[in-house]
Amino acid sequence: MGRNSVEEAIKSNRNIDKLFISKTAKGLKKLVESAKKMGIVVKYVDPSKLNYYGNNHQGVVALASPIQYVEVIDILNIAKSKGEPPFIIICDRIEDPHNLGAIIRTAEAAGAHGIIIPKRRSASITPVVEKTSAGAVNSLLVARVSNLASCIEYLKKMGLWIYCADMDGQNWCEVDFSGPVGLIIGSEGFGVGRLIKQKCDGSISLPMLGKINSLNASVAGGIVIYEILRQRKNIKAK
Amino acid sequence: MGRNSVEEAIKSNRNIDKLFISKTAKGLKKLVESAKKMGIVVKYVDPSKLNYYGNNHQGVVALASPIQYVEVIDILNIAKSKGEPPFIIICDRIEDPHNLGAIIRTAEAAGAHGIIIPKRRSASITPVVEKTSAGAVNSLLVARVSNLASCIEYLKKMGLWIYCADMDGQNWCEVDFSGPVGLIIGSEGFGVGRLIKQKCDGSISLPMLGKINSLNASVAGGIVIYEILRQRKNIKAK
Repeated sequence: MGRNSVEEAIKSNRNIDKLFISKTAKGLKKLVESAKKMGIVVKYVDPSKLNYYGNNHQGVVALASPIQYVEVIDILNIAKSKGEPPFIIICDRIEDPHNLGAIIRTAEAAGAHGIIIPKRRSASITPVVEKTSAGAVNSLLVARVSNLASCIEYLKKMGLWIYCADMDGQNWCEVDFSGPVGLIIGSEGFGVGRLIKQKCDGSISLPMLGKINSLNASVAGGIVIYEILRQRKNIKAK
Repeated sequence: MGRNSVEEAIKSNRNIDKLFISKTAKGLKKLVESAKKMGIVVKYVDPSKLNYYGNNHQGVVALASPIQYVEVIDILNIAKSKGEPPFIIICDRIEDPHNLGAIIRTAEAAGAHGIIIPKRRSASITPVVEKTSAGAVNSLLVARVSNLASCIEYLKKMGLWIYCADMDGQNWCEVDFSGPVGLIIGSEGFGVGRLIKQKCDGSISLPMLGKINSLNASVAGGIVIYEILRQRKNIKAK
Protein backbone atom coordinates (compact mmCIF):
# COMPACT_ATOMS: atom_id res chain seq x y z
CA MET A 1 0.00 0.00 0.00
CA GLY A 2 2.80 2.42 0.89
CA ARG A 3 3.07 5.22 3.43
CA ASN A 4 1.35 7.92 1.39
CA SER A 5 -1.76 5.91 0.68
CA VAL A 6 -2.05 4.84 4.34
CA GLU A 7 -1.73 8.49 5.32
CA GLU A 8 -4.47 9.42 2.86
CA ALA A 9 -6.73 6.64 4.13
CA ILE A 10 -6.31 7.80 7.72
CA LYS A 11 -7.11 11.40 6.80
CA SER A 12 -10.09 10.74 4.57
CA ASN A 13 -12.16 8.15 6.36
CA ARG A 14 -12.54 6.20 9.55
CA ASN A 15 -12.83 2.77 8.02
CA ILE A 16 -9.46 1.54 9.24
CA ASP A 17 -9.52 -1.20 11.85
CA LYS A 18 -5.88 -1.47 12.76
CA LEU A 19 -2.47 -0.20 11.76
CA PHE A 20 0.49 -2.58 11.77
CA ILE A 21 3.84 -0.81 12.05
CA SER A 22 7.16 -2.57 11.56
CA LYS A 23 9.28 -2.49 14.72
CA THR A 24 12.30 -1.48 12.65
CA ALA A 25 10.65 1.18 10.48
CA LYS A 26 11.79 4.78 10.85
CA GLY A 27 10.11 8.09 10.02
CA LEU A 28 6.56 6.97 10.85
CA LYS A 29 6.06 9.09 13.97
CA LYS A 30 3.75 11.62 12.29
CA LEU A 31 1.64 8.92 10.66
CA VAL A 32 1.28 7.03 13.97
CA GLU A 33 0.28 10.25 15.72
CA SER A 34 -2.44 11.09 13.22
CA ALA A 35 -3.71 7.47 13.35
CA LYS A 36 -3.95 7.59 17.14
CA LYS A 37 -5.73 10.93 16.91
CA MET A 38 -8.34 9.21 14.75
CA GLY A 39 -8.70 6.49 17.38
CA ILE A 40 -7.07 3.79 15.26
CA VAL A 41 -5.40 0.93 17.14
CA VAL A 42 -1.66 0.81 16.34
CA LYS A 43 0.32 -2.39 16.74
CA TYR A 44 4.10 -2.77 16.42
CA VAL A 45 5.05 -6.06 14.78
CA ASP A 46 8.06 -7.87 13.38
CA PRO A 47 8.83 -6.69 9.81
CA SER A 48 8.44 -10.29 8.57
CA LYS A 49 4.78 -10.22 9.63
CA LEU A 50 4.08 -7.33 7.26
CA ASN A 51 5.40 -9.28 4.27
CA TYR A 52 2.28 -11.44 4.56
CA TYR A 53 0.42 -8.44 3.11
CA GLY A 54 2.83 -8.02 0.16
CA ASN A 55 6.35 -6.65 -0.22
CA ASN A 56 5.45 -3.06 -0.93
CA HIS A 57 4.43 -2.01 2.57
CA GLN A 58 7.26 0.43 3.46
CA GLY A 59 6.93 -0.56 7.10
CA VAL A 60 3.20 0.07 7.52
CA VAL A 61 0.00 -1.85 6.76
CA ALA A 62 -3.55 -0.59 7.37
CA LEU A 63 -6.35 -3.13 7.80
CA ALA A 64 -9.61 -1.78 6.45
CA SER A 65 -13.00 -2.88 7.73
CA PRO A 66 -15.74 -4.12 5.37
CA ILE A 67 -18.13 -1.74 7.12
CA GLN A 68 -18.22 1.87 8.24
CA TYR A 69 -18.29 2.02 12.02
CA VAL A 70 -20.70 4.49 13.63
CA GLU A 71 -20.77 6.39 16.93
CA VAL A 72 -22.84 5.19 19.90
CA ILE A 73 -25.04 8.29 19.52
CA ASP A 74 -25.95 7.13 15.98
CA ILE A 75 -27.36 3.92 17.45
CA LEU A 76 -29.41 5.88 19.99
CA ASN A 77 -30.66 8.15 17.21
CA ILE A 78 -31.86 5.22 15.12
CA ALA A 79 -33.92 4.00 18.07
CA LYS A 80 -35.31 7.52 18.54
CA SER A 81 -36.22 7.89 14.87
CA LYS A 82 -38.12 4.59 15.05
CA GLY A 83 -39.89 5.71 18.21
CA GLU A 84 -38.59 2.65 20.07
CA PRO A 85 -36.78 2.36 23.42
CA PRO A 86 -33.12 1.64 22.60
CA PHE A 87 -32.04 -2.02 22.41
CA ILE A 88 -28.28 -2.36 22.18
CA ILE A 89 -25.96 -5.36 22.38
CA ILE A 90 -22.52 -4.79 23.92
CA CYS A 91 -19.82 -7.41 23.34
CA ASP A 92 -17.13 -7.63 26.02
CA ARG A 93 -13.97 -9.34 24.72
CA ILE A 94 -15.63 -11.60 22.15
CA GLU A 95 -12.45 -12.61 20.34
CA ASP A 96 -13.78 -15.47 18.24
CA PRO A 97 -15.00 -14.01 14.90
CA HIS A 98 -17.57 -16.82 14.49
CA ASN A 99 -19.14 -15.98 17.83
CA LEU A 100 -19.13 -12.25 17.06
CA GLY A 101 -20.71 -12.91 13.66
CA ALA A 102 -23.43 -15.12 15.12
CA ILE A 103 -24.22 -12.53 17.82
CA ILE A 104 -24.56 -9.78 15.20
CA ARG A 105 -26.81 -12.02 13.11
CA THR A 106 -29.08 -12.72 16.09
CA ALA A 107 -29.10 -9.06 17.19
CA GLU A 108 -30.13 -7.93 13.71
CA ALA A 109 -32.86 -10.56 13.44
CA ALA A 110 -34.23 -9.60 16.86
CA GLY A 111 -34.57 -5.94 15.96
CA ALA A 112 -31.69 -4.53 18.04
CA HIS A 113 -30.65 -1.01 17.04
CA GLY A 114 -26.93 -1.63 17.09
CA ILE A 115 -23.96 -3.38 18.56
CA ILE A 116 -20.99 -1.99 20.49
CA ILE A 117 -17.56 -3.64 20.53
CA PRO A 118 -14.36 -2.47 22.22
CA LYS A 119 -11.40 -1.47 20.05
CA ARG A 120 -9.01 -3.75 21.87
CA ARG A 121 -9.36 -7.35 23.06
CA SER A 122 -12.19 -8.02 20.63
CA ALA A 123 -12.61 -9.39 17.15
CA SER A 124 -13.29 -6.47 14.82
CA ILE A 125 -15.58 -6.63 11.78
CA THR A 126 -13.49 -8.75 9.44
CA PRO A 127 -14.68 -10.57 6.31
CA VAL A 128 -15.05 -13.75 8.45
CA VAL A 129 -17.36 -11.90 10.85
CA GLU A 130 -19.29 -10.48 7.89
CA LYS A 131 -19.78 -13.98 6.47
CA THR A 132 -20.76 -15.62 9.80
CA SER A 133 -23.23 -12.79 10.39
CA ALA A 134 -24.95 -13.80 7.11
CA GLY A 135 -24.48 -10.21 5.97
CA ALA A 136 -26.15 -8.71 9.06
CA VAL A 137 -23.12 -6.42 9.62
CA ASN A 138 -24.37 -4.49 6.61
CA SER A 139 -27.77 -3.69 8.08
CA LEU A 140 -26.99 -3.41 11.80
CA LEU A 141 -25.06 -0.40 13.13
CA VAL A 142 -21.73 -1.26 14.76
CA ALA A 143 -19.87 1.17 17.03
CA ARG A 144 -16.34 0.65 18.31
CA VAL A 145 -15.32 2.29 21.56
CA SER A 146 -11.95 2.79 23.24
CA ASN A 147 -13.33 2.45 26.76
CA LEU A 148 -16.22 0.11 27.38
CA ALA A 149 -16.63 1.16 31.03
CA SER A 150 -17.14 4.83 30.21
CA CYS A 151 -19.39 3.89 27.28
CA ILE A 152 -21.62 2.03 29.76
CA GLU A 153 -21.67 5.06 32.06
CA TYR A 154 -22.77 7.13 29.08
CA LEU A 155 -25.54 4.68 28.11
CA LYS A 156 -26.81 4.68 31.69
CA LYS A 157 -26.93 8.49 31.62
CA MET A 158 -28.95 8.21 28.42
CA GLY A 159 -31.53 6.16 30.29
CA LEU A 160 -30.57 2.59 29.40
CA TRP A 161 -30.71 -0.29 31.84
CA ILE A 162 -27.54 -2.31 31.46
CA TYR A 163 -27.55 -6.07 32.07
CA CYS A 164 -24.83 -8.64 31.66
CA ALA A 165 -25.32 -12.27 30.70
CA ASP A 166 -22.89 -13.84 33.10
CA MET A 167 -24.09 -17.20 34.38
CA ASP A 168 -24.99 -15.85 37.81
CA GLY A 169 -27.85 -13.57 38.68
CA GLN A 170 -31.56 -13.44 38.01
CA ASN A 171 -33.22 -15.97 35.69
CA TRP A 172 -33.15 -14.63 32.13
CA CYS A 173 -36.95 -14.57 31.78
CA GLU A 174 -37.67 -12.91 35.12
CA VAL A 175 -35.92 -9.60 34.36
CA ASP A 176 -38.01 -6.69 33.07
CA PHE A 177 -36.63 -5.84 29.63
CA SER A 178 -39.51 -3.67 28.46
CA GLY A 179 -37.62 -0.36 28.72
CA PRO A 180 -34.41 0.94 27.10
CA VAL A 181 -31.92 -1.90 27.44
CA GLY A 182 -28.25 -2.65 26.88
CA LEU A 183 -27.21 -6.30 27.06
CA ILE A 184 -23.56 -7.12 27.68
CA ILE A 185 -22.39 -10.49 26.35
CA GLY A 186 -19.08 -11.63 27.83
CA SER A 187 -16.49 -13.93 26.35
CA GLU A 188 -16.51 -17.64 27.12
CA GLY A 189 -13.07 -17.71 28.65
CA PHE A 190 -13.37 -14.65 30.85
CA GLY A 191 -17.07 -13.87 31.19
CA VAL A 192 -17.88 -10.21 31.65
CA GLY A 193 -14.95 -8.22 33.11
CA ARG A 194 -15.16 -7.37 36.82
CA LEU A 195 -15.09 -3.58 36.31
CA ILE A 196 -17.79 -3.81 33.65
CA LYS A 197 -19.94 -6.05 35.83
CA GLN A 198 -19.83 -3.57 38.71
CA LYS A 199 -21.34 -0.92 36.46
CA CYS A 200 -24.30 -3.07 35.43
CA ASP A 201 -27.83 -2.61 36.71
CA GLY A 202 -28.24 -6.35 36.95
CA SER A 203 -26.86 -9.66 35.88
CA ILE A 204 -28.74 -12.43 34.14
CA SER A 205 -28.24 -16.15 34.38
CA LEU A 206 -29.36 -19.23 32.52
CA PRO A 207 -30.03 -22.41 34.52
CA MET A 208 -27.34 -25.06 34.00
CA LEU A 209 -28.88 -28.45 34.71
CA GLY A 210 -26.10 -30.68 33.37
CA LYS A 211 -22.44 -31.21 34.17
CA ILE A 212 -21.02 -28.41 32.01
CA ASN A 213 -21.23 -24.93 33.48
CA SER A 214 -21.47 -22.54 30.54
CA LEU A 215 -22.87 -22.17 27.05
CA ASN A 216 -21.29 -20.98 23.85
CA ALA A 217 -21.29 -17.14 24.03
CA SER A 218 -23.44 -16.69 20.91
CA VAL A 219 -25.99 -19.28 22.07
CA ALA A 220 -26.26 -17.76 25.58
CA GLY A 221 -26.51 -14.30 24.04
CA GLY A 222 -29.16 -15.49 21.57
CA ILE A 223 -31.36 -16.92 24.33
CA VAL A 224 -31.36 -13.61 26.24
CA ILE A 225 -31.72 -11.50 23.06
CA TYR A 226 -34.88 -13.40 22.11
CA GLU A 227 -36.27 -13.03 25.63
CA ILE A 228 -35.78 -9.26 25.24
CA LEU A 229 -37.56 -9.41 21.86
CA ARG A 230 -40.41 -11.38 23.44
CA GLN A 231 -40.97 -8.77 26.13
CA ARG A 232 -40.58 -5.82 23.76
CA LYS A 233 -43.11 -7.31 21.33
CA ASN A 234 -45.45 -8.27 24.15
CA ILE A 235 -45.55 -11.91 23.11
CA LYS A 236 -47.21 -13.87 25.90
CA ALA A 237 -45.30 -16.95 27.00
CA LYS A 238 -47.09 -20.19 27.93
CA MET B 1 -4.32 -50.12 10.98
CA GLY B 2 -4.52 -53.09 8.59
CA ARG B 3 -7.37 -55.36 7.60
CA ASN B 4 -7.23 -57.71 10.55
CA SER B 5 -7.41 -55.01 13.17
CA VAL B 6 -10.30 -53.29 11.35
CA GLU B 7 -12.09 -56.64 11.25
CA GLU B 8 -11.50 -57.11 14.97
CA ALA B 9 -12.76 -53.60 15.74
CA ILE B 10 -15.93 -54.22 13.78
CA LYS B 11 -16.59 -57.50 15.56
CA SER B 12 -15.81 -56.37 19.08
CA ASN B 13 -17.48 -53.01 19.49
CA ARG B 14 -19.78 -50.52 17.83
CA ASN B 15 -17.62 -47.44 18.24
CA ILE B 16 -16.77 -47.11 14.56
CA ASP B 17 -18.16 -44.04 12.82
CA LYS B 18 -17.24 -44.75 9.22
CA LEU B 19 -15.28 -47.14 7.08
CA PHE B 20 -13.26 -45.80 4.15
CA ILE B 21 -12.53 -48.43 1.50
CA SER B 22 -10.11 -47.87 -1.36
CA LYS B 23 -11.87 -48.04 -4.73
CA THR B 24 -9.09 -50.23 -6.06
CA ALA B 25 -8.79 -52.61 -3.09
CA LYS B 26 -9.67 -56.26 -3.60
CA GLY B 27 -10.70 -59.01 -1.18
CA LEU B 28 -12.65 -56.74 1.20
CA LYS B 29 -16.12 -58.03 0.41
CA LYS B 30 -16.49 -59.99 3.65
CA LEU B 31 -15.24 -57.12 5.78
CA VAL B 32 -17.64 -54.67 4.09
CA GLU B 33 -20.53 -57.06 4.61
CA SER B 34 -19.88 -57.46 8.32
CA ALA B 35 -19.46 -53.69 8.67
CA LYS B 36 -22.81 -53.06 7.00
CA LYS B 37 -24.40 -55.69 9.20
CA MET B 38 -23.22 -53.67 12.20
CA GLY B 39 -24.79 -50.54 10.69
CA ILE B 40 -21.46 -48.87 9.91
CA VAL B 41 -21.46 -46.38 7.03
CA VAL B 42 -19.08 -47.54 4.26
CA LYS B 43 -17.57 -45.05 1.82
CA TYR B 44 -15.52 -45.91 -1.27
CA VAL B 45 -12.72 -43.40 -1.84
CA ASP B 46 -9.65 -42.87 -4.00
CA PRO B 47 -6.65 -44.81 -2.64
CA SER B 48 -4.70 -41.52 -2.33
CA LYS B 49 -7.23 -40.31 0.25
CA LEU B 50 -6.42 -43.21 2.55
CA ASN B 51 -2.72 -42.29 2.61
CA TYR B 52 -3.71 -39.30 4.70
CA TYR B 53 -4.19 -41.80 7.53
CA GLY B 54 -0.77 -43.43 7.08
CA ASN B 55 0.72 -45.86 4.55
CA ASN B 56 -0.16 -49.05 6.32
CA HIS B 57 -3.88 -49.12 5.58
CA GLN B 58 -4.11 -52.10 3.19
CA GLY B 59 -7.05 -50.45 1.43
CA VAL B 60 -9.24 -49.85 4.48
CA VAL B 61 -9.45 -47.20 7.23
CA ALA B 62 -11.91 -47.22 10.14
CA LEU B 63 -12.76 -43.91 11.83
CA ALA B 64 -13.48 -44.43 15.51
CA SER B 65 -15.74 -42.16 17.53
CA PRO B 66 -14.56 -40.60 20.81
CA ILE B 67 -17.83 -41.77 22.37
CA GLN B 68 -19.93 -44.90 22.55
CA TYR B 69 -23.21 -44.32 20.72
CA VAL B 70 -26.38 -45.60 22.38
CA GLU B 71 -29.79 -46.74 21.12
CA VAL B 72 -32.83 -44.46 21.14
CA ILE B 73 -34.43 -46.74 23.76
CA ASP B 74 -31.49 -46.02 26.10
CA ILE B 75 -32.36 -42.31 25.97
CA LEU B 76 -36.01 -43.05 26.76
CA ASN B 77 -34.92 -45.29 29.63
CA ILE B 78 -32.76 -42.56 31.18
CA ALA B 79 -35.80 -40.25 31.21
CA LYS B 80 -37.88 -43.01 32.77
CA SER B 81 -35.30 -43.73 35.46
CA LYS B 82 -35.27 -40.03 36.37
CA GLY B 83 -39.06 -39.95 36.47
CA GLU B 84 -39.12 -37.15 33.88
CA PRO B 85 -41.06 -36.84 30.61
CA PRO B 86 -38.52 -37.47 27.80
CA PHE B 87 -36.77 -34.41 26.33
CA ILE B 88 -34.81 -35.32 23.20
CA ILE B 89 -33.02 -33.20 20.60
CA ILE B 90 -32.98 -34.51 17.03
CA CYS B 91 -30.50 -33.01 14.56
CA ASP B 92 -31.50 -33.14 10.90
CA ARG B 93 -28.50 -32.77 8.58
CA ILE B 94 -26.36 -30.61 10.87
CA GLU B 95 -23.12 -31.00 8.93
CA ASP B 96 -21.03 -28.28 10.59
CA PRO B 97 -19.21 -29.88 13.56
CA HIS B 98 -19.11 -26.54 15.43
CA ASN B 99 -22.88 -26.24 15.22
CA LEU B 100 -23.39 -29.85 16.28
CA GLY B 101 -21.00 -29.36 19.22
CA ALA B 102 -22.76 -26.18 20.36
CA ILE B 103 -26.18 -27.88 20.14
CA ILE B 104 -24.98 -30.82 22.24
CA ARG B 105 -23.49 -28.40 24.80
CA THR B 106 -26.79 -26.50 25.07
CA ALA B 107 -28.87 -29.70 25.20
CA GLU B 108 -26.73 -31.08 28.03
CA ALA B 109 -26.90 -27.82 29.99
CA ALA B 110 -30.68 -27.67 29.58
CA GLY B 111 -31.22 -31.14 30.99
CA ALA B 112 -32.15 -32.96 27.78
CA HIS B 113 -31.93 -36.76 28.05
CA GLY B 114 -30.16 -37.31 24.77
CA ILE B 115 -29.54 -36.34 21.20
CA ILE B 116 -30.30 -38.22 17.99
CA ILE B 117 -28.30 -37.75 14.78
CA PRO B 118 -28.69 -39.51 11.44
CA LYS B 119 -25.87 -41.77 10.23
CA ARG B 120 -25.65 -40.05 6.86
CA ARG B 121 -25.67 -36.36 5.91
CA SER B 122 -24.67 -35.29 9.39
CA ALA B 123 -21.50 -34.51 11.26
CA SER B 124 -20.74 -37.44 13.54
CA ILE B 125 -19.13 -37.15 16.97
CA THR B 126 -15.56 -36.26 16.01
CA PRO B 127 -12.89 -34.76 18.27
CA VAL B 128 -13.88 -31.28 16.92
CA VAL B 129 -17.50 -31.84 17.98
CA GLU B 130 -16.28 -33.12 21.36
CA LYS B 131 -14.21 -29.95 21.86
CA THR B 132 -16.95 -27.53 20.72
CA SER B 133 -19.40 -29.29 23.01
CA ALA B 134 -17.08 -28.40 25.93
CA GLY B 135 -17.04 -32.10 26.77
CA ALA B 136 -20.84 -32.42 26.89
CA VAL B 137 -20.69 -35.40 24.47
CA ASN B 138 -19.30 -37.37 27.39
CA SER B 139 -22.27 -36.78 29.67
CA LEU B 140 -25.16 -36.61 27.17
CA LEU B 141 -26.37 -39.78 25.44
CA VAL B 142 -26.01 -39.71 21.64
CA ALA B 143 -27.86 -42.15 19.37
CA ARG B 144 -27.21 -42.52 15.65
CA VAL B 145 -30.03 -43.78 13.45
CA SER B 146 -30.12 -44.98 9.84
CA ASN B 147 -33.57 -43.61 9.16
CA LEU B 148 -34.65 -40.40 10.85
CA ALA B 149 -38.23 -40.60 9.54
CA SER B 150 -38.91 -44.01 11.04
CA CYS B 151 -37.14 -42.97 14.25
CA ILE B 152 -39.62 -40.09 14.55
CA GLU B 153 -42.52 -42.47 13.97
CA TYR B 154 -41.14 -44.61 16.79
CA LEU B 155 -40.78 -41.65 19.17
CA LYS B 156 -44.37 -40.59 18.43
CA LYS B 157 -45.53 -44.11 19.25
CA MET B 158 -43.63 -43.83 22.53
CA GLY B 159 -45.72 -40.78 23.39
CA LEU B 160 -43.43 -37.91 22.39
CA TRP B 161 -44.67 -34.73 20.74
CA ILE B 162 -42.31 -33.89 17.89
CA TYR B 163 -41.68 -30.28 16.91
CA CYS B 164 -39.33 -28.81 14.37
CA ALA B 165 -37.61 -25.42 14.59
CA ASP B 166 -38.06 -24.30 11.05
CA MET B 167 -38.64 -20.55 10.79
CA ASP B 168 -42.34 -20.90 10.05
CA GLY B 169 -45.04 -21.95 12.44
CA GLN B 170 -46.14 -21.07 15.93
CA ASN B 171 -44.13 -18.61 18.04
CA TRP B 172 -41.51 -20.53 20.03
CA CYS B 173 -42.89 -19.48 23.42
CA GLU B 174 -46.54 -20.19 22.64
CA VAL B 175 -46.16 -23.95 22.15
CA ASP B 176 -46.89 -26.25 25.10
CA PHE B 177 -43.66 -28.12 25.84
CA SER B 178 -44.62 -29.45 29.24
CA GLY B 179 -45.04 -33.08 28.13
CA PRO B 180 -42.67 -35.59 26.49
CA VAL B 181 -40.99 -33.66 23.69
CA GLY B 182 -38.66 -34.20 20.74
CA LEU B 183 -37.22 -31.07 19.12
CA ILE B 184 -35.88 -31.33 15.57
CA ILE B 185 -33.20 -28.79 14.64
CA GLY B 186 -32.65 -28.48 10.90
CA SER B 187 -29.55 -27.40 9.03
CA GLU B 188 -29.04 -23.80 8.01
CA GLY B 189 -28.83 -24.50 4.33
CA PHE B 190 -31.77 -26.84 4.02
CA GLY B 191 -33.91 -26.39 7.11
CA VAL B 192 -35.78 -29.48 8.20
CA GLY B 193 -36.34 -31.97 5.35
CA ARG B 194 -39.83 -32.03 3.82
CA LEU B 195 -40.54 -35.66 4.71
CA ILE B 196 -39.41 -35.12 8.28
CA LYS B 197 -41.50 -31.98 8.60
CA GLN B 198 -44.65 -33.80 7.50
CA LYS B 199 -44.23 -36.22 10.38
CA CYS B 200 -44.00 -33.46 13.01
CA ASP B 201 -46.79 -32.57 15.42
CA GLY B 202 -46.01 -28.92 14.96
CA SER B 203 -43.46 -26.45 13.74
CA ILE B 204 -41.95 -23.59 15.71
CA SER B 205 -40.78 -20.24 14.48
CA LEU B 206 -38.74 -17.35 15.80
CA PRO B 207 -39.75 -13.81 14.77
CA MET B 208 -37.30 -12.28 12.29
CA LEU B 209 -37.51 -8.49 12.61
CA GLY B 210 -34.47 -7.51 10.53
CA LYS B 211 -33.36 -8.03 6.96
CA ILE B 212 -31.80 -11.45 7.36
CA ASN B 213 -34.20 -14.38 7.43
CA SER B 214 -32.58 -17.07 9.54
CA LEU B 215 -30.37 -17.61 12.56
CA ASN B 216 -27.36 -19.80 13.07
CA ALA B 217 -28.70 -23.36 13.69
CA SER B 218 -27.14 -23.68 17.14
CA VAL B 219 -28.44 -20.26 18.23
CA ALA B 220 -31.99 -20.94 16.96
CA GLY B 221 -31.88 -24.38 18.59
CA GLY B 222 -30.58 -22.89 21.86
CA ILE B 223 -33.44 -20.38 22.07
CA VAL B 224 -36.07 -23.11 21.69
CA ILE B 225 -34.21 -25.54 23.98
CA TYR B 226 -34.21 -22.97 26.79
CA GLU B 227 -37.90 -22.24 26.25
CA ILE B 228 -38.52 -25.98 26.71
CA LEU B 229 -36.40 -25.91 29.90
CA ARG B 230 -38.39 -22.89 31.14
CA GLN B 231 -41.71 -24.66 30.73
CA ARG B 232 -40.45 -27.97 32.14
CA LYS B 233 -39.05 -26.23 35.23
CA ASN B 234 -42.17 -24.10 35.61
CA ILE B 235 -40.20 -20.85 35.56
CA LYS B 236 -42.68 -18.02 35.16
CA ALA B 237 -41.81 -15.54 32.44
CA LYS B 238 -42.38 -11.78 32.90
